[in-house]
Amino acid sequence: MTQRQQRIENVTVATMDQAHYGDGYGLLPNAVVCIDAGTISYVGSAADAPATPPDAEIIDAQGKLLTPGLIDCHTHLVWAGSRADEFAQRLHGVSYADIAAQGGGIAATVRATRAASEAELIEAATPRLQALIREGVTTLEIKSGYGLSLEHEGKQLRAAKQLAAAHPVSVQTTLLAAHALPPEFKDNADGYIDTIVDSILPTLADEGLVDAVDAFCEKVGFTPAQTERVFKAAQQRGLPVKLHAEQLSNQHGSALAARYQALSCDHLEYLDEEGIKAMAASGTVAVLLPGAFYFLRETKLPPLDLLRQHGVPIALATDANPGTSPILSLQLMLQMGATLFRMTPEECLQGVTVHAAQALGLSDRGRVATGLRADLCLWDCTEAAELTYQFGTDRLLGCWHQGVRR
Amino acid sequence: MTQRQQRIENVTVATMDQAHYGDGYGLLPNAVVCIDAGTISYVGSAADAPATPPDAEIIDAQGKLLTPGLIDCHTHLVWAGSRADEFAQRLHGVSYADIAAQGGGIAATVRATRAASEAELIEAATPRLQALIREGVTTLEIKSGYGLSLEHEGKQLRAAKQLAAAHPVSVQTTLLAAHALPPEFKDNADGYIDTIVDSILPTLADEGLVDAVDAFCEKVGFTPAQTERVFKAAQQRGLPVKLHAEQLSNQHGSALAARYQALSCDHLEYLDEEGIKAMAASGTVAVLLPGAFYFLRETKLPPLDLLRQHGVPIALATDANPGTSPILSLQLMLQMGATLFRMTPEECLQGVTVHAAQALGLSDRGRVATGLRADLCLWDCTEAAELTYQFGTDRLLGCWHQGVRR
Ligand SMILES: [Zn+2]
Ligand SMILES: [Zn+2]
Repeated sequence: MTQRQQRIENVTVATMDQAHYGDGYGLLPNAVVCIDAGTISYVGSAADAPATPPDAEIIDAQGKLLTPGLIDCHTHLVWAGSRADEFAQRLHGVSYADIAAQGGGIAATVRATRAASEAELIEAATPRLQALIREGVTTLEIKSGYGLSLEHEGKQLRAAKQLAAAHPVSVQTTLLAAHALPPEFKDNADGYIDTIVDSILPTLADEGLVDAVDAFCEKVGFTPAQTERVFKAAQQRGLPVKLHAEQLSNQHGSALAARYQALSCDHLEYLDEEGIKAMAASGTVAVLLPGAFYFLRETKLPPLDLLRQHGVPIALATDANPGTSPILSLQLMLQMGATLFRMTPEECLQGVTVHAAQALGLSDRGRVATGLRADLCLWDCTEAAELTYQFGTDRLLGCWHQGVRR
Repeated sequence: MTQRQQRIENVTVATMDQAHYGDGYGLLPNAVVCIDAGTISYVGSAADAPATPPDAEIIDAQGKLLTPGLIDCHTHLVWAGSRADEFAQRLHGVSYADIAAQGGGIAATVRATRAASEAELIEAATPRLQALIREGVTTLEIKSGYGLSLEHEGKQLRAAKQLAAAHPVSVQTTLLAAHALPPEFKDNADGYIDTIVDSILPTLADEGLVDAVDAFCEKVGFTPAQTERVFKAAQQRGLPVKLHAEQLSNQHGSALAARYQALSCDHLEYLDEEGIKAMAASGTVAVLLPGAFYFLRETKLPPLDLLRQHGVPIALATDANPGTSPILSLQLMLQMGATLFRMTPEECLQGVTVHAAQALGLSDRGRVATGLRADLCLWDCTEAAELTYQFGTDRLLGCWHQGVRR
């Protein structure tokens, strides 16, 4: 069955297309947006809008705000087990060291994720995915990184693909095998990197499960040299890279990632100007994660002013994960981006649309422009700043994923 | 039509009744809860449960967690206008002073609220109320304080009552006429207090619109002497009092409020031990407001340890308001209570149930106990700490307001 054309009339569009419409939102008031075969076929004034077929569906937006569908460009959405107990213990005064000695922390999530079947992973992740979808997310990234072996990393990524197939949402899968050291490779990080580059990465890439490759470059993660080996393997396969960088200390991971034309570097509290210049030169997006900043009670702010000065695009994401950001709300990240990082509402909205798309290497979405995918959100407000300012009310009047209203 | 009895079986109950069941949650596993005529008619083991009539509705909770309905004991939910513009201006570097000079800040909300009809206030507040209801809130407080005249304070409180009548939720109304100085009384705060005690308070109390009386005691608000005049007027009418106290400085407002057996003192970042002792002696609840703490990027923490030492009951609330907490989520306050204030998950859940009820002077709810109102939430988890730990997923399987599943 051919989908009927749709024509959204009387709409205020935050196109997020600064090149064409100027200002932070690329605002286009009193506009018409047409959707045809899953694609945006027209964006512009009513006067210039093409005629629509007689059977087209006409939607009167009553002047409300239309934005691109929201994009959560950094999540670890697929995991098993809960760390609520550990969270409670911490608040009762138990130290991280004691929790780690009990086998808690990421090791607990790795054990639970390995023990879970693909179906169980899907079941556990479904309410998390639904939370994002309910907020207007039309594309999200899901990383592996709690399997830490060929079998279990593959299972995580297959679960991510199945989740996408079962919901009106698009998922980009990122291989983050270099997230932590699995117990089998205790004191042998280089040996685990061998396994990643020789086996996990090529096998899962061949299976079509890897849209990008990520690593955790940190004193408590992998060294820059180990990270670079993963990047080289990705490069050989033609896969783009990303990096968890400069979250807890400055390892100069961002500069390294920029040398591999990374799509994004993420976290970045400890990023320095040298790293920022490298990112600017390589067109790498800075993905900031206010949920983790909040949850960890971090006080070191990411270098917003320098990122702005050097024109590095800034994205915002949930970092949804059981250890450092059990916060399933991209709309809250808009609020936190402004409140905690002092980003403007324009920057915040760019961060979950156009720049988030760029952080995933996707040029077919993230803006409202002719020829792009019809991933759209219609909001019960007229001012775009509302989306960042007020949190908690359900403002989503309509959401389209590839032209289908969900 | 008589309501069928309901029997919730195989349920883990966080009774929040420490006196009977010990520990922070008053946990009762493998329990049965019976609901009859809007009231909890039984809570306890399956073995001791009374027989239920043949037509009773049996609900198998499958071991999931039942808690009291959530109570948001401090909101300013009814307002008109938006401060999103002002929020954006601040992030673009405009000073508070400049915004105030333009007529922004609370003055803008007062103008918009005065200009709105009662129906318009209801329309504006409805999505906010729906957000709280969706999260499991069964009772909330709504304050006036943006009308600042007999006519407009009354309109706000009538709107609050109408909202309650139109939704499956209970509302306690609090007169907060002493919130800010209306423009008519510029440089004449004592004159405005005269109007409150001579006209606004008695008139609206006679209309049945005032469940409690509140004031804003602060350098930028009203003095302790002015506050006391409002308290005396409330006392003469037999109305309980509350106080916005010690948010920005220590005015010793809490000790004053305790002398009037205040139900609660709220905010309290600058509260000292003398005030805490006074609150402990008068049985006054400390209502902490992490949303405002977060939004204002406050760094001075409320004195949690001293409150604990002196046994002051602690509640958590949204403080939902357009200026300092545009955050319509009590579940987020649970998360923030733990993350920002280091409250334990037990304390956080007490804060939105049993202690929140006490902060409103309500002894018929806030716990799961025989004879209390059947205001209940059934959650898709088995560990009570989950409610505080993870934010954003919709875990509410069922919610009862006065015995009616909504
Ligand atoms: Zn991450
Ligand atoms: Zn307040």
